Amino acid sequence: MAQEAGYAVHAMSFNYGQRHVLELEQARAIASMAGVAAHSVVDFDLRAIGGSALTDAIEVPKDRVLDEPVPSIPITYVPARNTIFLSFALAWAEVLNAHDIFIGVNALDYSGYPDCRPEYIHSFEAMANLATRAGVEGHHRLAIHTPLIALTKAQIIREGLRLGVDYGLTSSCYDPAPDGRPCGHCDACQLRVRGFREVGVPDPLWQRYGMWT
Amino acid sequence: MAQEAGYAVHAMSFNYGQRHVLELEQARAIASMAGVAAHSVVDFDLRAIGGSALTDAIEVPKDRVLDEPVPSIPITYVPARNTIFLSFALAWAEVLNAHDIFIGVNALDYSGYPDCRPEYIHSFEAMANLATRAGVEGHHRLAIHTPLIALTKAQIIREGLRLGVDYGLTSSCYDPAPDGRPCGHCDACQLRVRGFREVGVPDPLWQRYGMWT
Repeated sequence: MAQEAGYAVHAMSFNYGQRHVLELEQARAIASMAGVAAHSVVDFDLRAIGGSALTDAIEVPKDRVLDEPVPSIPITYVPARNTIFLSFALAWAEVLNAHDIFIGVNALDYSGYPDCRPEYIHSFEAMANLATRAGVEGHHRLAIHTPLIALTKAQIIREGLRLGVDYGLTSSCYDPAPDGRPCGHCDACQLRVRGFREVGVPDPLWQRYGMWT
Repeated sequence: MAQEAGYAVHAMSFNYGQRHVLELEQARAIASMAGVAAHSVVDFDLRAIGGSALTDAIEVPKDRVLDEPVPSIPITYVPARNTIFLSFALAWAEVLNAHDIFIGVNALDYSGYPDCRPEYIHSFEAMANLATRAGVEGHHRLAIHTPLIALTKAQIIREGLRLGVDYGLTSSCYDPAPDGRPCGHCDACQLRVRGFREVGVPDPLWQRYGMWT
Protein backbone atom coordinates (compact mmCIF):
# COMPACT_ATOMS: atom_id res chain seq x y z
CA MET A 1 0.00 0.00 0.00
CA ALA A 2 2.90 2.37 0.78
CA GLN A 3 4.59 1.46 -2.50
CA GLU A 4 1.34 2.04 -4.40
CA ALA A 5 1.17 5.49 -2.78
CA GLY A 6 4.63 6.21 -4.23
CA TYR A 7 6.89 5.69 -1.21
CA ALA A 8 10.38 4.13 -1.48
CA VAL A 9 9.98 1.55 1.28
CA HIS A 10 12.68 0.80 3.87
CA ALA A 11 11.30 -2.28 5.62
CA MET A 12 12.09 -3.12 9.25
CA SER A 13 11.58 -6.44 11.03
CA PHE A 14 12.36 -7.46 14.60
CA ASN A 15 14.05 -10.55 15.97
CA TYR A 16 12.90 -10.12 19.58
CA GLY A 17 12.78 -13.65 20.94
CA GLN A 18 9.35 -14.43 19.52
CA ARG A 19 8.49 -18.14 19.36
CA HIS A 20 7.22 -17.58 15.80
CA VAL A 21 10.65 -16.40 14.61
CA LEU A 22 9.91 -18.14 11.30
CA GLU A 23 8.02 -14.97 10.38
CA LEU A 24 11.40 -13.31 9.74
CA GLU A 25 12.16 -15.70 6.88
CA GLN A 26 8.81 -14.80 5.37
CA ALA A 27 9.48 -11.09 5.92
CA ARG A 28 12.77 -11.42 4.03
CA ALA A 29 11.08 -13.23 1.14
CA ILE A 30 8.26 -10.69 0.92
CA ALA A 31 10.64 -7.70 1.16
CA SER A 32 12.75 -9.18 -1.61
CA MET A 33 9.74 -9.94 -3.84
CA ALA A 34 8.34 -6.45 -3.27
CA GLY A 35 11.67 -4.89 -4.26
CA VAL A 36 11.96 -2.62 -1.22
CA ALA A 37 14.80 -0.08 -1.06
CA ALA A 38 16.21 -1.80 2.04
CA HIS A 39 15.22 -4.37 4.68
CA SER A 40 16.69 -4.16 8.18
CA VAL A 41 16.22 -6.78 10.92
CA VAL A 42 16.75 -5.40 14.43
CA ASP A 43 17.86 -7.85 17.14
CA PHE A 44 17.01 -7.65 20.83
CA ASP A 45 15.65 -10.14 23.33
CA LEU A 46 12.33 -9.48 25.04
CA ARG A 47 12.58 -12.90 26.72
CA ALA A 48 14.79 -11.17 29.30
CA ILE A 49 11.81 -8.96 30.13
CA GLY A 50 9.10 -11.59 29.70
CA GLY A 51 5.42 -11.25 30.48
CA SER A 52 3.94 -12.77 27.30
CA ALA A 53 3.01 -16.14 25.82
CA LEU A 54 4.75 -15.04 22.61
CA THR A 55 8.17 -14.83 24.28
CA ASP A 56 7.93 -16.93 27.46
CA ALA A 57 7.38 -20.60 28.20
CA ILE A 58 3.66 -19.84 28.60
CA GLU A 59 1.26 -21.76 26.38
CA VAL A 60 -0.35 -19.88 23.53
CA PRO A 61 -4.14 -20.08 24.04
CA LYS A 62 -5.90 -22.34 21.51
CA ASP A 63 -9.45 -22.65 20.15
CA ARG A 64 -10.75 -19.54 21.86
CA VAL A 65 -14.28 -18.57 20.77
CA LEU A 66 -13.40 -15.47 18.75
CA ASP A 67 -16.42 -13.27 19.20
CA GLU A 68 -16.79 -13.63 22.93
CA PRO A 69 -15.85 -10.47 24.78
CA VAL A 70 -12.24 -10.54 25.97
CA PRO A 71 -12.19 -10.49 29.79
CA SER A 72 -8.83 -8.72 29.89
CA ILE A 73 -5.76 -8.18 27.74
CA PRO A 74 -4.72 -11.60 26.38
CA ILE A 75 -1.53 -13.37 27.42
CA THR A 76 -0.23 -13.08 23.85
CA TYR A 77 0.09 -9.34 24.40
CA VAL A 78 3.82 -8.46 24.50
CA PRO A 79 4.40 -5.53 26.89
CA ALA A 80 5.24 -2.31 25.03
CA ARG A 81 6.26 -4.24 21.91
CA ASN A 82 4.77 -1.87 19.34
CA THR A 83 6.27 1.08 21.22
CA ILE A 84 9.71 -0.55 20.97
CA PHE A 85 9.14 -1.38 17.27
CA LEU A 86 8.01 2.17 16.46
CA SER A 87 10.94 3.65 18.42
CA PHE A 88 13.46 1.78 16.26
CA ALA A 89 11.52 2.80 13.15
CA LEU A 90 11.62 6.40 14.38
CA ALA A 91 15.42 6.22 14.75
CA TRP A 92 15.84 4.87 11.23
CA ALA A 93 13.35 7.36 9.79
CA GLU A 94 15.32 10.20 11.34
CA VAL A 95 18.60 8.97 9.86
CA LEU A 96 16.98 8.47 6.44
CA ASN A 97 15.27 11.87 6.69
CA ALA A 98 11.99 10.02 6.08
CA HIS A 99 8.75 11.64 7.23
CA ASP A 100 6.43 8.65 7.10
CA ILE A 101 6.31 5.43 9.14
CA PHE A 102 3.85 2.65 8.25
CA ILE A 103 2.81 -0.04 10.74
CA GLY A 104 0.34 -2.86 10.11
CA VAL A 105 -1.60 -2.72 13.37
CA ASN A 106 -5.25 -3.71 13.24
CA ALA A 107 -7.77 -2.61 15.86
CA LEU A 108 -10.99 -4.00 14.47
CA ASP A 109 -10.84 -7.78 14.48
CA TYR A 110 -9.21 -7.96 17.86
CA SER A 111 -9.22 -5.01 20.20
CA GLY A 112 -7.51 -6.63 23.18
CA TYR A 113 -4.07 -5.09 22.55
CA PRO A 114 -3.67 -1.56 23.92
CA ASP A 115 -0.94 -0.71 21.41
CA CYS A 116 -3.12 -1.40 18.35
CA ARG A 117 -5.63 1.35 19.08
CA PRO A 118 -5.88 4.60 17.08
CA GLU A 119 -5.56 6.75 20.23
CA TYR A 120 -2.25 5.05 21.03
CA ILE A 121 -0.92 5.62 17.49
CA HIS A 122 -1.92 9.30 17.54
CA SER A 123 -0.18 9.73 20.87
CA PHE A 124 3.00 8.05 19.61
CA GLU A 125 2.97 10.35 16.59
CA ALA A 126 2.72 13.44 18.82
CA MET A 127 5.59 12.15 20.98
CA ALA A 128 7.72 11.31 17.91
CA ASN A 129 7.42 14.88 16.69
CA LEU A 130 8.89 16.14 19.99
CA ALA A 131 11.54 13.39 20.24
CA THR A 132 13.51 14.14 17.12
CA ARG A 133 15.29 16.79 15.09
CA ALA A 134 11.97 17.51 13.40
CA GLY A 135 10.52 18.51 16.76
CA VAL A 136 13.26 21.04 17.45
CA GLU A 137 14.00 22.30 13.97
CA GLY A 138 10.35 22.18 12.92
CA HIS A 139 11.05 21.62 9.23
CA HIS A 140 8.69 18.73 8.73
CA ARG A 141 6.09 16.68 10.51
CA LEU A 142 6.52 12.94 10.97
CA ALA A 143 3.40 10.84 10.38
CA ILE A 144 2.58 7.32 11.57
CA HIS A 145 0.40 5.59 8.95
CA THR A 146 -1.81 2.61 9.84
CA PRO A 147 -3.54 1.64 6.60
CA LEU A 148 -4.86 -1.63 8.05
CA ILE A 149 -6.07 -0.32 11.41
CA ALA A 150 -9.79 -0.17 10.62
CA LEU A 151 -10.02 -3.01 8.08
CA THR A 152 -11.47 -6.46 8.73
CA LYS A 153 -9.22 -9.44 8.01
CA ALA A 154 -11.32 -10.08 4.87
CA GLN A 155 -10.78 -6.51 3.67
CA ILE A 156 -7.05 -6.82 4.31
CA ILE A 157 -6.89 -10.05 2.29
CA ARG A 158 -8.82 -8.48 -0.61
CA GLU A 159 -6.50 -5.47 -0.60
CA GLY A 160 -3.46 -7.77 -0.64
CA LEU A 161 -4.86 -9.86 -3.50
CA ARG A 162 -5.54 -6.69 -5.50
CA LEU A 163 -1.88 -5.66 -4.98
CA GLY A 164 -0.51 -9.08 -5.93
CA VAL A 165 0.59 -10.28 -2.47
CA ASP A 166 1.54 -13.97 -2.45
CA TYR A 167 -0.17 -15.11 0.75
CA GLY A 168 1.79 -18.35 0.50
CA LEU A 169 4.80 -16.29 1.68
CA THR A 170 2.99 -14.80 4.68
CA SER A 171 2.80 -16.05 8.24
CA SER A 172 0.25 -15.37 10.98
CA CYS A 173 0.50 -18.23 13.49
CA TYR A 174 1.73 -17.50 17.03
CA ASP A 175 2.91 -21.08 17.54
CA PRO A 176 4.05 -22.65 14.25
CA ALA A 177 5.85 -26.01 13.93
CA PRO A 178 9.57 -25.84 13.08
CA ASP A 179 8.71 -26.51 9.41
CA GLY A 180 6.38 -23.48 9.34
CA ARG A 181 3.13 -25.42 9.59
CA PRO A 182 0.53 -23.20 11.30
CA CYS A 183 -0.97 -24.60 14.52
CA GLY A 184 -4.45 -23.82 13.18
CA HIS A 185 -5.83 -23.11 16.65
CA CYS A 186 -4.34 -19.87 18.03
CA ASP A 187 -6.22 -16.59 17.67
CA ALA A 188 -4.04 -15.52 14.74
CA CYS A 189 -4.78 -18.76 12.82
CA GLN A 190 -8.48 -18.59 13.59
CA LEU A 191 -8.75 -14.97 12.43
CA ARG A 192 -6.75 -15.73 9.28
CA VAL A 193 -8.86 -18.71 8.19
CA ARG A 194 -12.10 -16.84 8.92
CA GLY A 195 -10.85 -13.97 6.74
CA PHE A 196 -10.07 -16.24 3.78
CA ARG A 197 -13.44 -18.02 4.12
CA GLU A 198 -15.22 -14.66 4.11
CA VAL A 199 -13.39 -13.61 0.94
CA GLY A 200 -14.16 -17.03 -0.59
CA VAL A 201 -10.63 -17.90 -1.71
CA PRO A 202 -8.38 -20.64 -0.38
CA ASP A 203 -5.38 -19.74 1.81
CA PRO A 204 -2.28 -20.87 -0.14
CA LEU A 205 -0.35 -21.35 3.13
CA TRP A 206 -2.96 -23.68 4.59
CA GLN A 207 -3.24 -25.43 1.21
CA ARG A 208 0.50 -26.15 1.20
CA TYR A 209 0.18 -28.00 4.52
CA GLY A 210 -3.04 -29.78 3.47
CA MET A 211 -5.00 -27.81 6.08
CA TRP A 212 -7.48 -26.09 3.74
CA THR A 213 -10.62 -28.21 3.53
CA MET B 1 17.16 9.85 44.58
CA ALA B 2 14.58 7.17 43.75
CA GLN B 3 15.87 4.97 46.57
CA GLU B 4 15.72 7.89 49.00
CA ALA B 5 12.10 8.41 47.98
CA GLY B 6 11.41 4.80 48.98
CA TYR B 7 11.38 3.01 45.62
CA ALA B 8 12.78 -0.51 45.12
CA VAL B 9 14.95 0.24 42.09
CA HIS B 10 15.17 -2.05 39.05
CA ALA B 11 18.03 -0.51 37.07
CA MET B 12 18.29 -0.76 33.28
CA SER B 13 21.33 -0.07 31.10
CA PHE B 14 21.77 -0.31 27.34
CA ASN B 15 24.53 -1.85 25.28
CA TYR B 16 23.63 -0.15 21.99
CA GLY B 17 26.92 0.06 20.14
CA GLN B 18 28.11 3.22 21.92
CA ARG B 19 31.83 3.95 21.63
CA HIS B 20 31.84 4.67 25.39
CA VAL B 21 30.70 1.11 26.21
CA LEU B 22 32.94 1.30 29.29
CA GLU B 23 30.03 3.11 30.96
CA LEU B 24 28.31 -0.28 31.33
CA GLU B 25 31.06 -1.53 33.67
CA GLN B 26 30.57 1.56 35.77
CA ALA B 27 26.78 1.10 35.71
CA ARG B 28 27.22 -2.47 37.01
CA ALA B 29 29.52 -1.29 39.82
CA ILE B 30 27.18 1.53 40.83
CA ALA B 31 24.07 -0.68 40.70
CA SER B 32 25.84 -3.23 42.86
CA MET B 33 27.05 -0.65 45.37
CA ALA B 34 23.61 0.94 45.56
CA GLY B 35 22.04 -2.45 46.26
CA VAL B 36 19.34 -2.20 43.60
CA ALA B 37 16.66 -4.91 43.40
CA ALA B 38 17.84 -5.88 39.91
CA HIS B 39 20.02 -4.57 37.08
CA SER B 40 19.25 -5.48 33.48
CA VAL B 41 21.44 -4.69 30.47
CA VAL B 42 19.53 -4.63 27.17
CA ASP B 43 21.49 -5.37 23.98
CA PHE B 44 20.80 -3.96 20.54
CA ASP B 45 22.95 -2.29 17.92
CA LEU B 46 22.24 1.26 16.83
CA ARG B 47 25.35 1.18 14.63
CA ALA B 48 23.14 -0.57 12.06
CA ILE B 49 20.98 2.58 12.02
CA GLY B 50 23.77 5.12 12.45
CA GLY B 51 23.51 8.88 12.28
CA SER B 52 25.57 9.80 15.36
CA ALA B 53 29.17 10.42 16.43
CA LEU B 54 28.46 8.22 19.48
CA THR B 55 27.85 5.11 17.37
CA ASP B 56 29.45 5.80 13.98
CA ALA B 57 32.98 6.38 12.76
CA ILE B 58 32.36 10.11 13.04
CA GLU B 59 34.71 12.10 15.28
CA VAL B 60 33.36 13.31 18.61
CA PRO B 61 33.69 17.12 18.65
CA LYS B 62 36.37 18.39 21.04
CA ASP B 63 37.06 21.69 22.86
CA ARG B 64 33.80 23.31 21.84
CA VAL B 65 33.18 26.64 23.57
CA LEU B 66 30.36 25.55 25.88
CA ASP B 67 28.29 28.67 26.22
CA GLU B 68 28.13 29.60 22.57
CA PRO B 69 24.68 29.06 21.11
CA VAL B 70 24.38 25.66 19.42
CA PRO B 71 23.80 26.20 15.69
CA SER B 72 21.83 22.95 15.37
CA ILE B 73 21.46 19.58 17.08
CA PRO B 74 24.98 18.25 17.73
CA ILE B 75 26.43 15.22 15.97
CA THR B 76 26.60 13.39 19.31
CA TYR B 77 22.78 13.25 19.31
CA VAL B 78 21.73 9.61 18.78
CA PRO B 79 18.46 9.49 16.80
CA ALA B 80 15.51 8.46 19.00
CA ARG B 81 17.83 6.91 21.60
CA ASN B 82 15.94 8.06 24.68
CA THR B 83 12.67 6.94 23.08
CA ILE B 84 14.15 3.46 22.58
CA PHE B 85 15.53 3.44 26.15
CA LEU B 86 12.20 4.53 27.65
CA SER B 87 10.31 1.97 25.54
CA PHE B 88 12.34 -0.90 26.99
CA ALA B 89 11.88 0.58 30.47
CA LEU B 90 8.16 0.75 29.80
CA ALA B 91 8.09 -2.95 28.86
CA TRP B 92 9.93 -3.93 32.03
CA ALA B 93 7.79 -1.62 34.18
CA GLU B 94 4.66 -3.25 32.81
CA VAL B 95 5.93 -6.77 33.58
CA LEU B 96 7.01 -5.69 37.09
CA ASN B 97 3.70 -3.87 37.61
CA ALA B 98 5.76 -0.78 38.39
CA HIS B 99 4.16 2.65 37.99
CA ASP B 100 7.25 4.83 38.02
CA ILE B 101 10.14 5.18 35.56
CA PHE B 102 13.13 7.39 36.35
CA ILE B 103 15.48 8.73 33.66
CA GLY B 104 18.48 11.00 34.23
CA VAL B 105 17.97 13.40 31.33
CA ASN B 106 19.14 16.96 31.83
CA ALA B 107 17.79 19.89 29.84
CA LEU B 108 19.53 22.83 31.44
CA ASP B 109 23.25 22.56 30.83
CA TYR B 110 22.84 21.47 27.27
CA SER B 111 19.60 21.92 25.46
CA GLY B 112 20.68 20.64 22.04
CA TYR B 113 19.08 17.20 22.38
CA PRO B 114 15.37 17.10 21.51
CA ASP B 115 14.75 14.05 23.69
CA CYS B 116 16.00 15.71 26.89
CA ARG B 117 13.30 18.38 26.95
CA PRO B 118 10.40 18.41 29.46
CA GLU B 119 7.80 18.62 26.67
CA TYR B 120 9.20 15.43 25.15
CA ILE B 121 9.10 13.59 28.49
CA HIS B 122 5.48 14.69 29.13
CA SER B 123 4.50 13.49 25.70
CA PHE B 124 6.19 10.10 26.21
CA GLU B 125 4.34 9.73 29.51
CA ALA B 126 0.98 10.41 27.84
CA MET B 127 1.80 7.87 25.11
CA ALA B 128 2.96 5.28 27.68
CA ASN B 129 -0.37 5.48 29.44
CA LEU B 130 -2.17 4.58 26.20
CA ALA B 131 0.36 1.92 25.14
CA THR B 132 -0.01 -0.47 28.03
CA ARG B 133 -2.45 -2.48 30.15
CA ALA B 134 -2.74 0.59 32.40
CA GLY B 135 -4.14 2.53 29.48
CA VAL B 136 -6.87 0.01 28.78
CA GLU B 137 -7.65 -1.21 32.27
CA GLY B 138 -7.17 2.23 33.80
CA HIS B 139 -6.13 0.94 37.22
CA HIS B 140 -3.07 3.13 37.61
CA ARG B 141 -1.18 5.90 35.95
CA LEU B 142 2.42 5.45 34.88
CA ALA B 143 4.75 8.39 35.59
CA ILE B 144 8.11 9.30 34.02
CA HIS B 145 10.31 10.99 36.62
CA THR B 146 13.23 13.24 35.63
CA PRO B 147 14.75 14.42 38.91
CA LEU B 148 17.84 15.85 37.16
CA ILE B 149 16.10 17.61 34.27
CA ALA B 150 16.27 21.16 35.63
CA LEU B 151 19.46 20.92 37.70
CA THR B 152 22.85 22.35 36.74
CA LYS B 153 25.78 19.93 36.68
CA ALA B 154 26.99 21.50 39.96
CA GLN B 155 23.60 20.90 41.60
CA ILE B 156 23.63 17.27 40.37
CA ILE B 157 27.11 16.73 41.82
CA ARG B 158 26.08 18.23 45.18
CA GLU B 159 22.98 16.03 45.29
CA GLY B 160 25.10 12.95 44.53
CA LEU B 161 27.66 13.84 47.21
CA ARG B 162 24.86 14.29 49.75
CA LEU B 163 23.58 10.79 48.85
CA GLY B 164 27.04 9.19 49.05
CA VAL B 165 27.64 8.60 45.33
CA ASP B 166 31.25 7.55 44.62
CA TYR B 167 31.99 9.70 41.56
CA GLY B 168 35.14 7.63 41.02
CA LEU B 169 32.77 4.92 39.74
CA THR B 170 30.94 7.19 37.30
CA SER B 171 31.67 7.91 33.65
CA SER B 172 30.73 10.86 31.47
CA CYS B 173 33.17 10.92 28.55
CA TYR B 174 31.86 10.28 25.02
CA ASP B 175 35.26 9.10 23.80
CA PRO B 176 37.25 7.42 26.61
CA ALA B 177 40.50 5.51 26.13
CA PRO B 178 40.30 1.70 26.43
CA ASP B 179 41.53 1.96 30.05
CA GLY B 180 38.66 4.34 30.94
CA ARG B 181 40.73 7.53 30.86
CA PRO B 182 38.41 10.43 29.92
CA CYS B 183 39.40 12.37 26.77
CA GLY B 184 38.99 15.62 28.72
CA HIS B 185 37.85 17.55 25.65
CA CYS B 186 34.38 16.37 24.57
CA ASP B 187 31.27 18.27 25.71
CA ALA B 188 30.55 15.69 28.42
CA CYS B 189 34.06 16.03 29.90
CA GLN B 190 33.97 19.81 29.74
CA LEU B 191 30.58 19.99 31.46
CA ARG B 192 31.71 17.51 34.13
CA VAL B 193 34.88 19.35 35.05
CA ARG B 194 33.11 22.71 35.10
CA GLY B 195 30.52 21.23 37.48
CA PHE B 196 33.17 19.93 39.90
CA ARG B 197 35.03 23.26 39.81
CA GLU B 198 31.82 25.12 40.59
CA VAL B 199 31.14 22.84 43.57
CA GLY B 200 34.77 23.26 44.64
CA VAL B 201 35.62 19.58 45.09
CA PRO B 202 38.03 17.49 43.02
CA ASP B 203 36.67 14.88 40.60
CA PRO B 204 37.93 11.50 41.87
CA LEU B 205 37.82 10.08 38.33
CA TRP B 206 40.05 12.83 36.93
CA GLN B 207 42.28 12.52 40.00
CA ARG B 208 42.82 8.81 39.34
CA TYR B 209 44.16 9.59 35.88
CA GLY B 210 46.22 12.55 37.10
CA MET B 211 44.00 14.94 35.14
CA TRP B 212 42.78 17.08 38.05
CA THR B 213 45.05 20.10 38.40
